[in-house]
Amino acid sequence: MEIEIATIGGYEEVGRQMTAVRAGDNVVIFDMGLNLSKVLIHDNVETERMHSLDLIDMGAIPDDRVMSDIEGDVQAIVPTHGHLDHIGAISKLAHRYDAPIVATPFTIELVKQQIESEEKFGVQNDLIKMEAGSMRDIGDECELEFVNVTHSIIDAINPVLHTPEGSVVYGLDKRMDHNPVLGDPIDMDRFREISREGEGVLCYIEDCTNASKKGKTPSETVAREQLRDVMYSLEDYDGGIVATTFSSHIARVTSLVEFAKDIGRQPVLLGRSMEKYSGTAERLGFAEFPDDLGMYGHRKSVDRTFKRIMEEGKEDYLPIVTGHQGEPRAMLTRMARGETPYELDEGDKVIFSARVIPEPTNEGQRYQAETLLGMQGARIYDDIHVSGHLNQEGHYQMLDALQPKNLIPAHQDMKGFAPYVDLARNQGYEIGRDLHITENGNTIQLTE
Amino acid sequence: MEIEIATIGGYEEVGRQMTAVRAGDNVVIFDMGLNLSKVLIHDNVETERMHSLDLIDMGAIPDDRVMSDIEGDVQAIVPTHGHLDHIGAISKLAHRYDAPIVATPFTIELVKQQIESEEKFGVQNDLIKMEAGSMRDIGDECELEFVNVTHSIIDAINPVLHTPEGSVVYGLDKRMDHNPVLGDPIDMDRFREISREGEGVLCYIEDCTNASKKGKTPSETVAREQLRDVMYSLEDYDGGIVATTFSSHIARVTSLVEFAKDIGRQPVLLGRSMEKYSGTAERLGFAEFPDDLGMYGHRKSVDRTFKRIMEEGKEDYLPIVTGHQGEPRAMLTRMARGETPYELDEGDKVIFSARVIPEPTNEGQRYQAETLLGMQGARIYDDIHVSGHLNQEGHYQMLDALQPKNLIPAHQDMKGFAPYVDLARNQGYEIGRDLHITENGNTIQLTE
Amino acid sequence: MEIEIATIGGYEEVGRQMTAVRAGDNVVIFDMGLNLSKVLIHDNVETERMHSLDLIDMGAIPDDRVMSDIEGDVQAIVPTHGHLDHIGAISKLAHRYDAPIVATPFTIELVKQQIESEEKFGVQNDLIKMEAGSMRDIGDECELEFVNVTHSIIDAINPVLHTPEGSVVYGLDKRMDHNPVLGDPIDMDRFREISREGEGVLCYIEDCTNASKKGKTPSETVAREQLRDVMYSLEDYDGGIVATTFSSHIARVTSLVEFAKDIGRQPVLLGRSMEKYSGTAERLGFAEFPDDLGMYGHRKSVDRTFKRIMEEGKEDYLPIVTGHQGEPRAMLTRMARGETPYELDEGDKVIFSARVIPEPTNEGQRYQAETLLGMQGARIYDDIHVSGHLNQEGHYQMLDALQPKNLIPAHQDMKGFAPYVDLARNQGYEIGRDLHITENGNTIQLTE
Amino acid sequence: MEIEIATIGGYEEVGRQMTAVRAGDNVVIFDMGLNLSKVLIHDNVETERMHSLDLIDMGAIPDDRVMSDIEGDVQAIVPTHGHLDHIGAISKLAHRYDAPIVATPFTIELVKQQIESEEKFGVQNDLIKMEAGSMRDIGDECELEFVNVTHSIIDAINPVLHTPEGSVVYGLDKRMDHNPVLGDPIDMDRFREISREGEGVLCYIEDCTNASKKGKTPSETVAREQLRDVMYSLEDYDGGIVATTFSSHIARVTSLVEFAKDIGRQPVLLGRSMEKYSGTAERLGFAEFPDDLGMYGHRKSVDRTFKRIMEEGKEDYLPIVTGHQGEPRAMLTRMARGETPYELDEGDKVIFSARVIPEPTNEGQRYQAETLLGMQGARIYDDIHVSGHLNQEGHYQMLDALQPKNLIPAHQDMKGFAPYVDLARNQGYEIGRDLHITENGNTIQLTE
Repeated sequence: MEIEIATIGGYEEVGRQMTAVRAGDNVVIFDMGLNLSKVLIHDNVETERMHSLDLIDMGAIPDDRVMSDIEGDVQAIVPTHGHLDHIGAISKLAHRYDAPIVATPFTIELVKQQIESEEKFGVQNDLIKMEAGSMRDIGDECELEFVNVTHSIIDAINPVLHTPEGSVVYGLDKRMDHNPVLGDPIDMDRFREISREGEGVLCYIEDCTNASKKGKTPSETVAREQLRDVMYSLEDYDGGIVATTFSSHIARVTSLVEFAKDIGRQPVLLGRSMEKYSGTAERLGFAEFPDDLGMYGHRKSVDRTFKRIMEEGKEDYLPIVTGHQGEPRAMLTRMARGETPYELDEGDKVIFSARVIPEPTNEGQRYQAETLLGMQGARIYDDIHVSGHLNQEGHYQMLDALQPKNLIPAHQDMKGFAPYVDLARNQGYEIGRDLHITENGNTIQLTE
Repeated sequence: MEIEIATIGGYEEVGRQMTAVRAGDNVVIFDMGLNLSKVLIHDNVETERMHSLDLIDMGAIPDDRVMSDIEGDVQAIVPTHGHLDHIGAISKLAHRYDAPIVATPFTIELVKQQIESEEKFGVQNDLIKMEAGSMRDIGDECELEFVNVTHSIIDAINPVLHTPEGSVVYGLDKRMDHNPVLGDPIDMDRFREISREGEGVLCYIEDCTNASKKGKTPSETVAREQLRDVMYSLEDYDGGIVATTFSSHIARVTSLVEFAKDIGRQPVLLGRSMEKYSGTAERLGFAEFPDDLGMYGHRKSVDRTFKRIMEEGKEDYLPIVTGHQGEPRAMLTRMARGETPYELDEGDKVIFSARVIPEPTNEGQRYQAETLLGMQGARIYDDIHVSGHLNQEGHYQMLDALQPKNLIPAHQDMKGFAPYVDLARNQGYEIGRDLHITENGNTIQLTE
Repeated sequence: MEIEIATIGGYEEVGRQMTAVRAGDNVVIFDMGLNLSKVLIHDNVETERMHSLDLIDMGAIPDDRVMSDIEGDVQAIVPTHGHLDHIGAISKLAHRYDAPIVATPFTIELVKQQIESEEKFGVQNDLIKMEAGSMRDIGDECELEFVNVTHSIIDAINPVLHTPEGSVVYGLDKRMDHNPVLGDPIDMDRFREISREGEGVLCYIEDCTNASKKGKTPSETVAREQLRDVMYSLEDYDGGIVATTFSSHIARVTSLVEFAKDIGRQPVLLGRSMEKYSGTAERLGFAEFPDDLGMYGHRKSVDRTFKRIMEEGKEDYLPIVTGHQGEPRAMLTRMARGETPYELDEGDKVIFSARVIPEPTNEGQRYQAETLLGMQGARIYDDIHVSGHLNQEGHYQMLDALQPKNLIPAHQDMKGFAPYVDLARNQGYEIGRDLHITENGNTIQLTE
Repeated sequence: MEIEIATIGGYEEVGRQMTAVRAGDNVVIFDMGLNLSKVLIHDNVETERMHSLDLIDMGAIPDDRVMSDIEGDVQAIVPTHGHLDHIGAISKLAHRYDAPIVATPFTIELVKQQIESEEKFGVQNDLIKMEAGSMRDIGDECELEFVNVTHSIIDAINPVLHTPEGSVVYGLDKRMDHNPVLGDPIDMDRFREISREGEGVLCYIEDCTNASKKGKTPSETVAREQLRDVMYSLEDYDGGIVATTFSSHIARVTSLVEFAKDIGRQPVLLGRSMEKYSGTAERLGFAEFPDDLGMYGHRKSVDRTFKRIMEEGKEDYLPIVTGHQGEPRAMLTRMARGETPYELDEGDKVIFSARVIPEPTNEGQRYQAETLLGMQGARIYDDIHVSGHLNQEGHYQMLDALQPKNLIPAHQDMKGFAPYVDLARNQGYEIGRDLHITENGNTIQLTE
């Protein structure tokens, strides 16, 4: 059976991930993501109303025109988890394919919300929930499996397409976490099994984000322990404390909520994304929050909440807000600019349970937010975080577990591939033979 | 009563710490340290046989000639903890003073060992053990107190000299750790009490090492959690694993030993310093190690142990060795150069539970060690560590707790003082008024 | 005679420079600058209409309220050169003093323009032109002298106040340039003479901007040679070339204009600041530009010029524009956003004869500008620049030339002072004795 | 005709360059270099006595065993210039090939010296001098041409193999210098012609060293201007001045010699490499040095010279010495350790006309040398240098000139290739189609 991989998007950047795997006549698409930075660099662009081709030209969504060269029928569109760089283009591209969108329940819910906010296209694809650990037929001879992995969002999986020629493992995005605070550990046993089943692993497509970082990405428990250490050390502080983190990082939000209670403060989630992700997680039963946990997204209700906090005493609250990157319109930035009823006093604490994404625009915005917060007397606790991506030793262990016949570095540009390629070469792979350095729009034929 | 501070050493560098406090006619000396890098930059220097004046000229030990200008009698020499930059000059300088050396039990033991290895001078000062939390008279009107603090070595204290004019708190070196794995948490309650007793805190001398770092230094529990995460993730590995850390960091060594057992390996401590510090800690009852824990310092017994490990199967052992900075003669460097019977194979793991000290010489040596290890196939896990020094928010909390009338930044050069001075200024201190920027050899008169 | 220095602004930052020297009953003020970054971090602030006290509270202009404690009459306000951080607060503060503004001709002209654009205060102080190399009485016993120095703007001087107790040399801002392209070399002979006259140099106030940088700041001829090398290498290119640099850097603008002609292109200066500084320099005879050199500041005339360039062929022009830091409203940023009639094609060149000011906000903006330019196909030549400030060896030579009795580091925060303090200490100065580390709002009494 | 490229060494590192081009039955080898760092990391290794296979195993010289798979006769071994990473393996590998070594006169002379110092192998290959700009037959249908380029050593060329299928341009190592101080400018006209001749350029193999650096590598005139600026600024200094640079960088040595004379000092070249390279350059007529310029290599004559300099007055001399990277046994390091008769005094100057090679071992050694020099009072002028390799805009212009059908990035590891690959992709090349990412030991077949 012919197995062919089309590396459509996310092979020259982080963002706009999209990969298609053809096994004979059947095709599965993994991810349809958005590169938000390509949108934000322009003033006043609203993606909701934009046409796909314009977004493709901007480099914001995958250029899927290469799909017309792939001879086969798309059987499923499979987003691996709910981050925008993996689902953000579904509302712009999925309607072109006569195939259902298959994902884990939490991811499906986020896809649904995204489709609903789309104003240009009507996306009608079926939305099918499939649990981590389960299987589904793709055509007569292939099967799609979801292997549970750990990432900075819950309900993330690595999809595996089992074919007669061996399996294709799509390895984006994960950390090797045996103790992930929320959800199950990464299912390394299953990966090891897959390598021993049938023809073994024909191809592994790997997320190179942290391939330059030595050692092992720490478990979420390490971030949790650091967060606990910081928050408990503030137990006696009787002024304002504010925290911010990735809204979609439910495990982290859970820890923030829990430690807030531990130190005698009422947590409250503020900001549109905070409400959206945590609300969804709670509704679907992925997280259990205290009954009295408020979540407010609309600016008016947020400001009303801030007013109430100021009246009742901010020493009794922990607002958990959006804005960890200093994004101009996020809640923390508004607080820094004095645009909310929440008033910071000398000595108040701001906890960034996030790392600044290393790109000059972010760094500038985050710096401005911190500077403005500091001008109001705030004390900053930052970098209380662990990455969601594999470091070198995680990559090493994945290769050891899967023993893949072919390797395709992904989720980066060439500079990002480089350390992964070095690592793979050290393990005996050879460029052009079984180590495929590719770019957006390429196809790689693995078997004939 | 006249209170005067002589800032003798460690005010233009890290290393060779020494400060004298005169209260009326009585003088207490805090620390007598060695700046090892000033020795090592020269080839073939052996400090054991060198004269004090030569070491002073090299900048290796404090230039205590300023003490002849201090009118008073030295009543005690008080090293705060057992690191070389705090005790390393005692064998070269203490015999000039007719005063006992007063320190916590673990520190006294290390001082004793250091004096015994001295070949040039005969140091005869009394060695007096004084527990953290206890007091001792200094002349008629003053008292010396040891407040328990947390640092990267056990039994560390901050000495406080209580005088009729208020107390002088000597704040070197500490991290604010409420959960330090070994020993008691930092005694913040006592610091707060001291600020409310009598005249309050007249002067606080502060360790600026990490004053440029935002947030809170993580607790040792965070390093422990990260170490656990790494070591447990290697449970299934059936080859060699080697770990290295600061020999004097007994809490870390304890964690390494414990996790080695957890993953089914026999830990063994190798290298002269490993044997020295852990042996001392065990003998004095500070750490409880398993009965079957071997500690070997002499090269022959180390090599014999390596041979045994190779014969019995290295997959059953965890050698914990010296050499975390790539020091040319340390055990790990010898292993990297293939000079020991321990053979590394492709895939073997080396765990650096330490951070490279950011200085080009160290960085070069560590790089060479890692490169040589890598050439033998070793996989590196590094930076599993937390600092032993206060970050900015620790400094902020200390100022809040002590409310000192005068501040003296220490344990750094001017570049290192700068961020602390900024922080202190933000809290209302003013250079030249109550914020004293000083240098080696200066005296600061606080009261008349 | 009592000599006292009030370090009013620019001793905790770069920007809002202001220093007063009192010699007996007479006072001279050096610089009254603006810290623009403190303004820009707020949205929608227009300094022209703001009150001094608000600007003081923002940290934007010097807090000169300390002047009420200085017992003496202000005899002159002396801006040293025309950069905003040295003259930008004159329109907000000068009217409070009954004293003329004394400066070199080019600087006076820029002060005049600044006063004219002020909308809140009416500044009526006399404006007195005084040439580099000349003298002026201050009271009966003192004299003010302007020593010619070299900086990144023309007609810069170091003012010297000669008093019976020795001279006070105000050393902001300069580079040691013996070959400055425009204007005379730095007058080191005069500095050396001053050190030998009368009581020598009582005090030297020094610009520490580059005190952490080793070696010698290169001469403007080095930047010119690098610029020539780049521009000549583009001689055969037949598309668009655009250059940007500091508008006030007349020597650099002159080189750009000259090399444009050399490679067969018509230079044209575009942007408000470009027109302002170069127009002023030409009118005052400081620079000779070709007769056909166009300078356009108003947006309409700029756009008209761009349209003409596009019609006549951009391969025949070199637009020299504002926007080297990616400032949001500057000309190059507008070009990058496609908001001007000038169209960039694949392969067109953009020359940044400037270095990005190392601050995250700038770095973010510059990155965005370069990214947007790159998206249009532009090729970037950056960092063709030399600093206007002394590196370490310049500082060393100034100390050697002046042999000052007292030293005051300035034009930085503590972190910036640190390397200068180290250098001065190496030369025998001692903190608290003759090396005065100060902050905004302090006074230092040098003689009684 | 079959054209095949074997990328033998230098495709995973900088150092041990070696590439073979087969055109039908004829093969030309470009470069046979040594990776010195792979030797130096081991203690006490002497390459002169080592066997090729051991050096191959160490990664020090190219693994040329792949040559047995290349079906054709080697007609020439062509080192492009005299740096060790291009000629250093000739004495270990050339004797295996029945082919002459063809190079420019200066390169041939250095090859000859290297062969003479070899102790293990007897290299008997003919040494043939061929001038830049000339041609030579390779078999019946091909020609070898040397195109003059500019690099940090004189007499560097880019060899071009003209075949019926188009030319293969081997582009290592060069900077685009139109004004190189010594020798002719880079022959861009010839490159442009080659692209228009016959079938054009079939393949371009490019040196990616600086592919991550923006803009244009400055001309040697820029380094010369900066050096002049520094040295002239020291004209009045009446103590010791010492300079160091790359011994093989004859243009730089020439400038140092010339400026020494200009400021009234007698230059003298000290150190084995200094004598070797400059002596060779003078003997062959590439550089004209003053008649009275001394060059001393042996330690005894160097020390005798230092003694004479100290006796006659070091203010009249400029020693130009080896040791710019702080190499342990080089002359400047010996001076820093006080091991020579030359005594440094407070204020003496040391000029590094070189940049530290960014690798931790070098950085550590250089730091130690500077620290030791500083402890003796020396003032450091560093980084007076320009790179010998193309920056991004040079790469852009080469692609524009040559319009190659195939591209092979070289002279780096994957991380170093990455920015070049990005640049090439922007110009329309595609990985796997005409942009060949390769590794050591690969072959790429270009035509059939």
